[in-house]
Amino acid sequence: MASNSFGNIFKIVTWGESHGKAIGVVVDGCPAGLALSEDDINAELFWRMPGRNAFTSPRQEKDCVEILSGVFEGATTGAPISLIIWNLDARSQSYESMQTLLRPGHANYTYLQKYGSFDHRGGGRASARETACRVAAGAIAKKILSVIGVKVVAFLRSAGAIKGDFDLSYFSSDTSLLHVRIRESAVFCPDSATAQQIEAAIDMAKKEKDSVGGIVEAAAFNVPVGFGDPVYEKLEANLAKAMLSIPASKGFEIGCGFMAAGMKGSEHNDPFAIENQKIILTSNHAGGTLGGISNGMPIVVRVPFKPTSTIGQDQKTASIEGESKNLKLPEGSRHDPCVAIRAVPVVEAMFALVLVDAMLMNRSIGLNV
Amino acid sequence: MASNSFGNIFKIVTWGESHGKAIGVVVDGCPAGLALSEDDINAELFWRMPGRNAFTSPRQEKDCVEILSGVFEGATTGAPISLIIWNLDARSQSYESMQTLLRPGHANYTYLQKYGSFDHRGGGRASARETACRVAAGAIAKKILSVIGVKVVAFLRSAGAIKGDFDLSYFSSDTSLLHVRIRESAVFCPDSATAQQIEAAIDMAKKEKDSVGGIVEAAAFNVPVGFGDPVYEKLEANLAKAMLSIPASKGFEIGCGFMAAGMKGSEHNDPFAIENQKIILTSNHAGGTLGGISNGMPIVVRVPFKPTSTIGQDQKTASIEGESKNLKLPEGSRHDPCVAIRAVPVVEAMFALVLVDAMLMNRSIGLNV
Amino acid sequence: MASNSFGNIFKIVTWGESHGKAIGVVVDGCPAGLALSEDDINAELFWRMPGRNAFTSPRQEKDCVEILSGVFEGATTGAPISLIIWNLDARSQSYESMQTLLRPGHANYTYLQKYGSFDHRGGGRASARETACRVAAGAIAKKILSVIGVKVVAFLRSAGAIKGDFDLSYFSSDTSLLHVRIRESAVFCPDSATAQQIEAAIDMAKKEKDSVGGIVEAAAFNVPVGFGDPVYEKLEANLAKAMLSIPASKGFEIGCGFMAAGMKGSEHNDPFAIENQKIILTSNHAGGTLGGISNGMPIVVRVPFKPTSTIGQDQKTASIEGESKNLKLPEGSRHDPCVAIRAVPVVEAMFALVLVDAMLMNRSIGLNV
Amino acid sequence: MASNSFGNIFKIVTWGESHGKAIGVVVDGCPAGLALSEDDINAELFWRMPGRNAFTSPRQEKDCVEILSGVFEGATTGAPISLIIWNLDARSQSYESMQTLLRPGHANYTYLQKYGSFDHRGGGRASARETACRVAAGAIAKKILSVIGVKVVAFLRSAGAIKGDFDLSYFSSDTSLLHVRIRESAVFCPDSATAQQIEAAIDMAKKEKDSVGGIVEAAAFNVPVGFGDPVYEKLEANLAKAMLSIPASKGFEIGCGFMAAGMKGSEHNDPFAIENQKIILTSNHAGGTLGGISNGMPIVVRVPFKPTSTIGQDQKTASIEGESKNLKLPEGSRHDPCVAIRAVPVVEAMFALVLVDAMLMNRSIGLNV
Repeated sequence: MASNSFGNIFKIVTWGESHGKAIGVVVDGCPAGLALSEDDINAELFWRMPGRNAFTSPRQEKDCVEILSGVFEGATTGAPISLIIWNLDARSQSYESMQTLLRPGHANYTYLQKYGSFDHRGGGRASARETACRVAAGAIAKKILSVIGVKVVAFLRSAGAIKGDFDLSYFSSDTSLLHVRIRESAVFCPDSATAQQIEAAIDMAKKEKDSVGGIVEAAAFNVPVGFGDPVYEKLEANLAKAMLSIPASKGFEIGCGFMAAGMKGSEHNDPFAIENQKIILTSNHAGGTLGGISNGMPIVVRVPFKPTSTIGQDQKTASIEGESKNLKLPEGSRHDPCVAIRAVPVVEAMFALVLVDAMLMNRSIGLNV
Repeated sequence: MASNSFGNIFKIVTWGESHGKAIGVVVDGCPAGLALSEDDINAELFWRMPGRNAFTSPRQEKDCVEILSGVFEGATTGAPISLIIWNLDARSQSYESMQTLLRPGHANYTYLQKYGSFDHRGGGRASARETACRVAAGAIAKKILSVIGVKVVAFLRSAGAIKGDFDLSYFSSDTSLLHVRIRESAVFCPDSATAQQIEAAIDMAKKEKDSVGGIVEAAAFNVPVGFGDPVYEKLEANLAKAMLSIPASKGFEIGCGFMAAGMKGSEHNDPFAIENQKIILTSNHAGGTLGGISNGMPIVVRVPFKPTSTIGQDQKTASIEGESKNLKLPEGSRHDPCVAIRAVPVVEAMFALVLVDAMLMNRSIGLNV
Repeated sequence: MASNSFGNIFKIVTWGESHGKAIGVVVDGCPAGLALSEDDINAELFWRMPGRNAFTSPRQEKDCVEILSGVFEGATTGAPISLIIWNLDARSQSYESMQTLLRPGHANYTYLQKYGSFDHRGGGRASARETACRVAAGAIAKKILSVIGVKVVAFLRSAGAIKGDFDLSYFSSDTSLLHVRIRESAVFCPDSATAQQIEAAIDMAKKEKDSVGGIVEAAAFNVPVGFGDPVYEKLEANLAKAMLSIPASKGFEIGCGFMAAGMKGSEHNDPFAIENQKIILTSNHAGGTLGGISNGMPIVVRVPFKPTSTIGQDQKTASIEGESKNLKLPEGSRHDPCVAIRAVPVVEAMFALVLVDAMLMNRSIGLNV
Repeated sequence: MASNSFGNIFKIVTWGESHGKAIGVVVDGCPAGLALSEDDINAELFWRMPGRNAFTSPRQEKDCVEILSGVFEGATTGAPISLIIWNLDARSQSYESMQTLLRPGHANYTYLQKYGSFDHRGGGRASARETACRVAAGAIAKKILSVIGVKVVAFLRSAGAIKGDFDLSYFSSDTSLLHVRIRESAVFCPDSATAQQIEAAIDMAKKEKDSVGGIVEAAAFNVPVGFGDPVYEKLEANLAKAMLSIPASKGFEIGCGFMAAGMKGSEHNDPFAIENQKIILTSNHAGGTLGGISNGMPIVVRVPFKPTSTIGQDQKTASIEGESKNLKLPEGSRHDPCVAIRAVPVVEAMFALVLVDAMLMNRSIGLNV
């Protein structure tokens, strides 16, 4: 199964292993005439990069993209855009001691059973390193969205035991400020009190050679009414698929999500009203869609990430050969204490990719040519 | 956008409006040689049918399917299977008084904006009536899964304020008994104490001319290792898309789902062990997949449904023409007080459809021909 | 493999066996707001109908379509359009004597090997009866094309030994008249001298209990520049696929086609020139595309059809059980002496389907929203 | 429209412009466990390479592929295989004098109209240079086919006025020898008498600053019964699409192709017979398929290529700005006098890609898991 592509009209294909020569993505279906430079993309990659601070993996990857095709004289041509990121700081030898061990929470067991072999170096295709390609492609999607004024913002809502029930409604009139606050935080949390608690919780987990999970929240502002298609191509269906394709994600919700199950219809329904002679909704429990189609309100989603599977503590496991074993992480092993942090730019990227695809699909409506 | 189909190799296309002549589904890609009769499908449709008891809509639809193609001498031929269900009890006149009103929680606003018109009779394509076609197609998928011993079971976990934290682990060795218990319950809840509370809560909501939401849980047993594909075609990604395509669903989680965000790696990781010389997992926090590929454990998912949007209480809204209005449901209006109940067989059907597609895709692995 | 659908954005799925209850097609992705009635479609089906005259099969199928969904108050809604045609004059018993015989030129051998069974009644899915669904869907595509002034016209260019090298350039300013001439001819040949020769050749073949092949030519006028996409979605690539999917077709060519292989570049190149301050091409050897994209000239294609495989003469063959046999057609067996005739409206329909899909795809170009 | 990918289960995506930094292809869906090296691919690229002899373009591209992913320890892993070929001998300045001229037979007019801009350097994506990526991917497809004993062979059948009606039936028991003969010929024609005539014809055309077209024929031997799917995914439909996606191709035929239109059913039908207790066909007019599914006979196709559009003679044309102009090719301009020659390995590659996709699809038939 050709399973490395995402999208219909605006389509990406990613390739490359965590410890191979390079990773890359081909973006096919990008409209012509978009100003695009390597800097545009590198600026986004920066936020997903490991080694930025104490809360992410110490692997030092510069993650500089090279544009190999599809851009001519500073603008896209409509041809496929091939982006490559060379792997520079892969340390495959770290993995050799674990070569034949099944790693709890990792995919080497299932890959081995499915394919008969496994690239043990750093997780191969199952590694979160693949998500750098999503962020690179997402940078292009965001540039397209900015043409129509759509802005996507993701942040860390909670981590481990720290539930972030902070209120962000005061940002609603200034999403740029929200974005600044998120980027200022080492853990991508715009509420500084919560951010501090999360940092403390992660520090503690690191000391205990353990890891924590977290919830990423994201919102898209200014999406026109009409994105998304009925029945099987609902906007939230494609968002859910996008989010569950991110490594370590375990769920998805839109609007009130799971909380909606405990509500009554009279509470949950978003009333319509007239404001300045236009139809508006006076609340946003639905999270920005009705019948799978954007309704003009912010589209709000949340995605939970499991705690990092790689931990410093010893773990019971088995070897490929079928013997009980103890898994001891090699010294100098590098991993994130909380994958949800670096998932923030990935969620943002996937959100943008889904929206651009929905925007381009939406053009086939109506008879005007 | 051709948005009415689902699946890649085992593909369904549904058509028909709630109040049109008929609804139907074409199942394309069904392997040849499967014994199949209309009774097989009607038996499944029975459980989604409205009017079965006080907890579902009083609309009386027999929902009898007619097989128009693809079956010859009692077995599938590999040709597309066309199924039709005639609409018998549509009462379009009930909707006439609301023709120009935007209905909170409904799709008529977004459809109207997107397509320039809307089939106001009973929701058209946005109606949950479309899901009868999913259940019909799902019946075929389930028959295929039964050939390899896979069993999918869904039930109502909670509704409104009633949190069903009942334990079902004692069923794990007998999924057939679990299935019986679910079907015995008027609200598809296998725990009779919870079921009674849910029934009371729904009765109360009906008296208040209100509705309640609910959470549907589903599990697939006996799925071989290897279903699902890396990166963008992860099993949980396709399950998430499938579930979010169901009307009124607001989320998805697999395994510990959102709870995983609050756990530590040392708690969440499922250890590998050796039992009877075979590799097993000793817990199932992941919910049956690793790296997007089934790991041999039960695949466990949960889907929240919002409270039914149609309620008996008057609601503030606007008209298409842009005037503030009061929405008063016509006398004799028929709707479910809790859509999550009839969503149970739909979740089961979508689960089965995703699994069959993954099973057929899985055959392209390896070089043996 | 779900192999019964065609198109990307404007997608059709056909179903039904030649001798089953009915055949049908679901058209998914039709823009909303198109006026559409059953009469619109029946008018097109009429031309493909068997039994119209001595040059087609005597099977008497009224081929009246019923619209089951997707049309509300006389116009399309954007929802899938389900069309059904009931089979009325299937005579399955005619086929019983041949049940276990491999029929030269037919698909029962390959279907049997592939699927392990075969619906022997009239060819099942392999029957040309399936093409009625293409014509029905094509009628919708043609209505869409007419909105932008595009007209597709197909006709019989040659049959058997009769090479029709007639010149149609005098019709170029009046495609409606060309269409009338084609429909006036019993064999869909606009040149009356050639038509008469073809009729005589077919009469002779029928007397000899034999059949003849033929070449269908088709042209699309007024196609805007820009339809078709680079590399793998070239307009001619999709046209070729469409044409080779028609039963009995054996090839495809565009513009000078096979003759181009014998030409020199200086002859074949179509010069550009300026006329009324617009860029034009002064010849059309390419047949209306450059680089897979329409160039504004008429798109001209030709499709050869093999002689009907079913013939009255006895033929040597084998049985499923592996014995040498003589195939004797049962008395009253009904078939076309020249399938190319009834292929004319099918070619026209497939042409229109490809163009509509290309038109809708073309909208994703450029950054304007 | 994402139009740069081909195939369903075995899918390729190509990228890169003729005069950009590099070109490349991502092969997604390759089964795991296939031995694969860069040499395997370079061996195939060699035959498409320009500059090999006087009958091809003098551009000197080494066309050495680098495998960037998907291969681990000498074998495929099931992950996407990324192949890159760096452009070394692009001379973009040659094109500058023609920057604003529409080039007859080329795509710059249609690209410009469609995308609003055009990469004038060497044709950009429309250049035949893209086909190197097809040959690279085809090399992998051929290795897969060799596992099941399938062999694809293409050659030049005719060029310009030289009709090659030579008979190759004496090779039927030794396709390897046929392959050797083809590769020994500077023009890929296995019949040395015809080859000499073609070489002379091309020499003459070069002297006249002109070009010639040609017909490529290809056959696949040993294809099992059952490849290809009914109705819209017929093997010949996918072959036709594949062939018409090759730059400069103008048609496609299978078996007797256009000649079939002139035959009678009694001549064209391939009789079944019993040989060594097995069902065989005693002739191959159909060209190896029945009902779109391979029937066990060699699959034989032919593809005409137009004469190279780039010629040394001056041509009348217009500029982008709308002025009549004379197109004079710059000194030192490099192009093929007969594109059909270098199309031979491309046809072979596309044939192999279609067969592998059909082979992998074919596995979803039947209920055995």
